Amino acid sequence: MKAIGLQCAVCGQMYPLEDRYECQTCGGLLQVIYEKSAGGAVPAEELTDDAFSGLWRYHRMLPLENTEHIVSLGEGNTPLVRAGRIYSGLGMDNFYIKNEFSNPTASFKDRPTSVGISVAKEHGATTVAVASSGNAGVSVAAYAAKAGMRCLACVPQKTSPGKVGQLMAYGATVTFAPGGYSDCFGIVREACKRYGYANLTSTYVNPYTVEGDKTVAYELFEQMKGEVPDWITVPIGTGPLLSGVYRGYQELMAMGLVSRLPHMLGVQAETCSPIVKGFEKEDGRVEACTDMGDTMAGGIADQLIGYEGDGEHTIRLVRESGGRMTSLTEEEIREAWSELSRTEGVFAEPTGATAVGGVKKMLEQGVIKPTDTVVALVTGHGLKAAHYCMPGAGEGDSSGGNAEVRPIRVITRPEELV
Amino acid sequence: MKAIGLQCAVCGQMYPLEDRYECQTCGGLLQVIYEKSAGGAVPAEELTDDAFSGLWRYHRMLPLENTEHIVSLGEGNTPLVRAGRIYSGLGMDNFYIKNEFSNPTASFKDRPTSVGISVAKEHGATTVAVASSGNAGVSVAAYAAKAGMRCLACVPQKTSPGKVGQLMAYGATVTFAPGGYSDCFGIVREACKRYGYANLTSTYVNPYTVEGDKTVAYELFEQMKGEVPDWITVPIGTGPLLSGVYRGYQELMAMGLVSRLPHMLGVQAETCSPIVKGFEKEDGRVEACTDMGDTMAGGIADQLIGYEGDGEHTIRLVRESGGRMTSLTEEEIREAWSELSRTEGVFAEPTGATAVGGVKKMLEQGVIKPTDTVVALVTGHGLKAAHYCMPGAGEGDSSGGNAEVRPIRVITRPEELV
Repeated sequence: MKAIGLQCAVCGQMYPLEDRYECQTCGGLLQVIYEKSAGGAVPAEELTDDAFSGLWRYHRMLPLENTEHIVSLGEGNTPLVRAGRIYSGLGMDNFYIKNEFSNPTASFKDRPTSVGISVAKEHGATTVAVASSGNAGVSVAAYAAKAGMRCLACVPQKTSPGKVGQLMAYGATVTFAPGGYSDCFGIVREACKRYGYANLTSTYVNPYTVEGDKTVAYELFEQMKGEVPDWITVPIGTGPLLSGVYRGYQELMAMGLVSRLPHMLGVQAETCSPIVKGFEKEDGRVEACTDMGDTMAGGIADQLIGYEGDGEHTIRLVRESGGRMTSLTEEEIREAWSELSRTEGVFAEPTGATAVGGVKKMLEQGVIKPTDTVVALVTGHGLKAAHYCMPGAGEGDSSGGNAEVRPIRVITRPEELV
Repeated sequence: MKAIGLQCAVCGQMYPLEDRYECQTCGGLLQVIYEKSAGGAVPAEELTDDAFSGLWRYHRMLPLENTEHIVSLGEGNTPLVRAGRIYSGLGMDNFYIKNEFSNPTASFKDRPTSVGISVAKEHGATTVAVASSGNAGVSVAAYAAKAGMRCLACVPQKTSPGKVGQLMAYGATVTFAPGGYSDCFGIVREACKRYGYANLTSTYVNPYTVEGDKTVAYELFEQMKGEVPDWITVPIGTGPLLSGVYRGYQELMAMGLVSRLPHMLGVQAETCSPIVKGFEKEDGRVEACTDMGDTMAGGIADQLIGYEGDGEHTIRLVRESGGRMTSLTEEEIREAWSELSRTEGVFAEPTGATAVGGVKKMLEQGVIKPTDTVVALVTGHGLKAAHYCMPGAGEGDSSGGNAEVRPIRVITRPEELV
């Protein structure tokens, strides 16, 4: 399945495989197009090449011409674990968690980054730029270090010293933009145009990165022995992960390896949910979120200012899949996050736990049935947001961190250890 | 390769496979003994069972009778990544890093914990206890949550609220012991004896957990297509990881799958290095470290008070392998930690980076040759010690965090992003 070009998802204009971040004609987002296999069906063995490991086992399905350009830290190949306890009380028996936080920088972003940096290397880039102080920025800084490339990270001025420190630990050059994320996004986009830096910013801006996301679908196909889950649930900022996973299943279907597609469930935080609001309207139009409230799920608090169309692209895919968009209150996010660690031993970033909380909401609304097979993508490790772990969190009550802080006993004798 | 009993590593006394944590006769540490295969050689396929994933692919080599008792969060199956940049200036061409921090709780401890908890479940345990505020405690709390077991964690009173919070997030019952780790260790050991709790404390106390560590060797065997590295380097607190990995290679040799064993390099922090000091003495006697200094590598700062013999066991294995023990100064640890993230994109816990720094030291001393194939086990994720990431760390100089703190530029225009 050879990559043959880029195509605008809006107007259909074609381009060669080059460093291009938007359609010249209409400004739409670009997608990698592959040559169709002649006969349609492809044997499952063609999907993988065991001379490589992690997501690069699927390099034949990725837009890299020469595998010598691969920049890898061992991303992909993440565990799929049955979550038998958390919603068993709701009759849920076939619930699985895909632990994307087992990637090298502890989030799913390493998939798009590995593919994006490898393509950038193939195209001769020596400098990459990224607008993000979160999982994406850290991931790009790590892979740039591995590749020996310069990494320019532009982050909001209010970014915490811890996150700045982590970017700098990887050797990235960090700069602050005064306003919020949108300012960083604009500066990086423009600087990449002018100076030829590879733009590794998340969202849909780089057409190659989303190809990394689709490897989640291939892994699920293998891990579930060909069974297609009824639902796959994904935390949504802009939507490239959801888009990539759905695209992966579309390709598996085109190859004749699966006979149906999953329903996609996208989950946002209620305080910043422009895509949920757009989904609920008939015309699917997205308005940027200009009155964002605080949220524990910072990784998906994407206002979409200036790239509202990306959200509409996500809505189209969710609708096409027969899926849903939903949002969670802060209390629901905290509850999902707390229940997930206490019942399944999975310590997630609150953002990652929204994929799980969304399942509960859809079960209660009857959208997901208890007999459905459901996979939740838990996108980042709890260690990335360990400050939410204050003593008292998760001790006994079902709402987690709202528990009163109980004093911790000091013991000196074995009989006190109870 | 069926497990048939426990044997004292000191006096040879045999016991059945039961909950037993020391030799009744001499107090020595216990090891699992397997029945020898009749003909010696075993085909490589017998090592694995692809009906399972992660380290449980090797369940035939593990002391669990019934795979229904497996408690898994997706541990094992960690990436092996070539580190081509960090010591290339020293002529090192075949240096690999095994990223043990890709395990579910972000440290290698998930291997011994998964095996230890599964065996405890098989033996009917409903409560597990652990003395540790570090990687081991967090790992045990996570797996206990998954298994629906009660977890009693006894930690030093000075343990940081963040670590206590993480244990509690998994639902563990946390208690403080006034003194240091040795007090916790004693209380937990005695309480387990009296009340039948399964003792999941790290060190060699639980004979089943170290069996989980040996799966690192099996994975390396597969990932390196049967090639045995000349050296494997391991951060050392007490030594079960080193012991387990070496044991794994001994088993591979007994099965006829490899024809030689690796040299083992154990690395400690100079401020707490009782095993290095014992190794340097002809009789290999270990004295507990009663004057421990501060170290960034807190995960291996083990004073061995009351279980000095465990250190001597580690020394015997290192000597048997033709290996070495070495220690690093704080400056050397910081340098290795910083170089590792800036040149390889691997953000490790400082403890984990000692395995890498030890290689440099042995290269400089001529013990390891640049042409040797070397694997460093990086045991924990940098996110576990993110407080060492202060702005200024790793910015430009080779010694990392000692760099002066440069102000971060505020930019408003694309041309400033350089």
